Amino acid sequence: MEKIKVIQMGIGTVGQAATRSLVKKRGLDVVGALDLDKEKVGKDLGEVAGLGKKLGVIVTDDADSLFPETYADVVIHTVCVYLHEAYPQIIKPIQQGMNVISSSEALGNPYVSDPGLAAKLDKLAKKHGVTVLGSGLSPGFTSDYLILALTGVCSEVCKIRYARLSDVRRYLGGTVGRHFGLGLSPEEFKRGVEEGEIIGHIGFIESVQTVADRLGWQLDEIKRTMEPVHDHKGQFVSTKTVVQGIRDGEVKIELELEAFIDPKMETMDSITIEGIPPINMVIKPVIPGIEATANALVNAIPHVINAEPGIMTPGDLPLIFALENDLRMFLK
Amino acid sequence: MEKIKVIQMGIGTVGQAATRSLVKKRGLDVVGALDLDKEKVGKDLGEVAGLGKKLGVIVTDDADSLFPETYADVVIHTVCVYLHEAYPQIIKPIQQGMNVISSSEALGNPYVSDPGLAAKLDKLAKKHGVTVLGSGLSPGFTSDYLILALTGVCSEVCKIRYARLSDVRRYLGGTVGRHFGLGLSPEEFKRGVEEGEIIGHIGFIESVQTVADRLGWQLDEIKRTMEPVHDHKGQFVSTKTVVQGIRDGEVKIELELEAFIDPKMETMDSITIEGIPPINMVIKPVIPGIEATANALVNAIPHVINAEPGIMTPGDLPLIFALENDLRMFLK
Repeated sequence: MEKIKVIQMGIGTVGQAATRSLVKKRGLDVVGALDLDKEKVGKDLGEVAGLGKKLGVIVTDDADSLFPETYADVVIHTVCVYLHEAYPQIIKPIQQGMNVISSSEALGNPYVSDPGLAAKLDKLAKKHGVTVLGSGLSPGFTSDYLILALTGVCSEVCKIRYARLSDVRRYLGGTVGRHFGLGLSPEEFKRGVEEGEIIGHIGFIESVQTVADRLGWQLDEIKRTMEPVHDHKGQFVSTKTVVQGIRDGEVKIELELEAFIDPKMETMDSITIEGIPPINMVIKPVIPGIEATANALVNAIPHVINAEPGIMTPGDLPLIFALENDLRMFLK
Repeated sequence: MEKIKVIQMGIGTVGQAATRSLVKKRGLDVVGALDLDKEKVGKDLGEVAGLGKKLGVIVTDDADSLFPETYADVVIHTVCVYLHEAYPQIIKPIQQGMNVISSSEALGNPYVSDPGLAAKLDKLAKKHGVTVLGSGLSPGFTSDYLILALTGVCSEVCKIRYARLSDVRRYLGGTVGRHFGLGLSPEEFKRGVEEGEIIGHIGFIESVQTVADRLGWQLDEIKRTMEPVHDHKGQFVSTKTVVQGIRDGEVKIELELEAFIDPKMETMDSITIEGIPPINMVIKPVIPGIEATANALVNAIPHVINAEPGIMTPGDLPLIFALENDLRMFLK
């Protein structure tokens, strides 16, 4: 059987981590790489991804040439957050019959932010016989998939809470740092939010909907807050993003990310399920976001190839595990 | 669409817990119940399962009449540990075209204890177009399924360790208590092992094989030890069952259950994955064994109906979650 062919679309931090994961896999060939950054275009993907070796794949910025000329079974898309950004990018590979696995948070459940565009995407994917999955660490794992998996030993679930305490010092000064308004005073933070620069964690609304969909919970409302925590001296401590799924005035699902820059704070992912039986799970230290997101995308490859055409969410996945074996072993 | 019909086969502690879970489900009818215990035969299943209400299902001990006369989509089989015991029991419903979900530890991966009988079972299931799954808490969840799910965010896995610390005081004097030799002196324990009464936890060998199969790890050997822990005064503390999957002289997978009767000890399930990234997960207190086993069986129902005919192991499952919604929503 021929090897599975993959194109890496977007070679930022997640795309670089995905590339490092892809090259470890057996039964898989990376056949193309796309990025608009002039610093990366024309260079070898291995070099751009920090592999210290060439892969024989030259980074191009020309999607209009790449997709008709180079066929892949799967495109790993690690470019943007929102659906309206992702849509025009991923329709090109979809129209060429390629499956798409994306880290776009909105694609974690695209019906949430734009049901019309999601329906259009689903129709297009079905027309071309391909599957589109948005995944990663969150959405994709801790905030939806792992929660659902833990409920698998429950006879009843009353309430779900996920909290991530993450040390984001390494993102100070970068894009992620700006998204969380790290280190800012209360006034600067307020201005950043108003200007749309500070957005906090995106994707929890999608995860809440995915969990609610699978549990058959009809939510009345999904509420989101995003605010800074400052100590009594006015020093920035963290940015908290909280999303709550509410039914009959009761919080049924609560997802929280506290992104902090205090080296003394402890990192962790915790899931609490109030149900029969109750389950209290803690992962300590926190699962690293960039690497886990990249690995979740890569480990989904054979399962997305196997899946029915159309949009799938992390709640529709089969059991996903590390691809230590030749990927072709898992193709149906 | 008609409701999913289920027969409960075996109404011991796990079967009673399964019944309590089944009656909560929407889109499901319990249509039959089987047990050989004279105390239970002729009584209503609801009464036997401690529901405090009748279900209109009378417990019978006559499998030869029940299976041809009463059709079910799925039989929940909670009767025994070993494959040679389970086989003659489950072939009756299989021959009537019913899927089987069993708590039999050997059925968690039946190729481990008897590849010949497993192949025969697989052939029979395929002939009758039904699926046979062995599941529960372990095998079925913590010692295989959840381990694999956690590796889903790893690019590499080097070593896996699962440890369960379980307070088993409530089993003192019962079957489980005898299987673990609870409270015995070193001499009594030794005699119990020799006489085959004390067997420790069964199912870890099956789980090790399931994890290794999915990761594509060729193990050279699976080693099992089961021994008591006594304190310096010779007082019984716990029974430890340890199973190791070994490759090239290195322990790749280690599963351990410490069953203790000391009220001061803390219970927990922990999974440690040495990989990229490493993952350290703890569930505290321990997931209760009987209830979680029963719920894992029940929550698998629609997914087993959807599955291809033949034997499946927990490693082949899709994402399993609490069935809060009408079960028929999940049928393909």
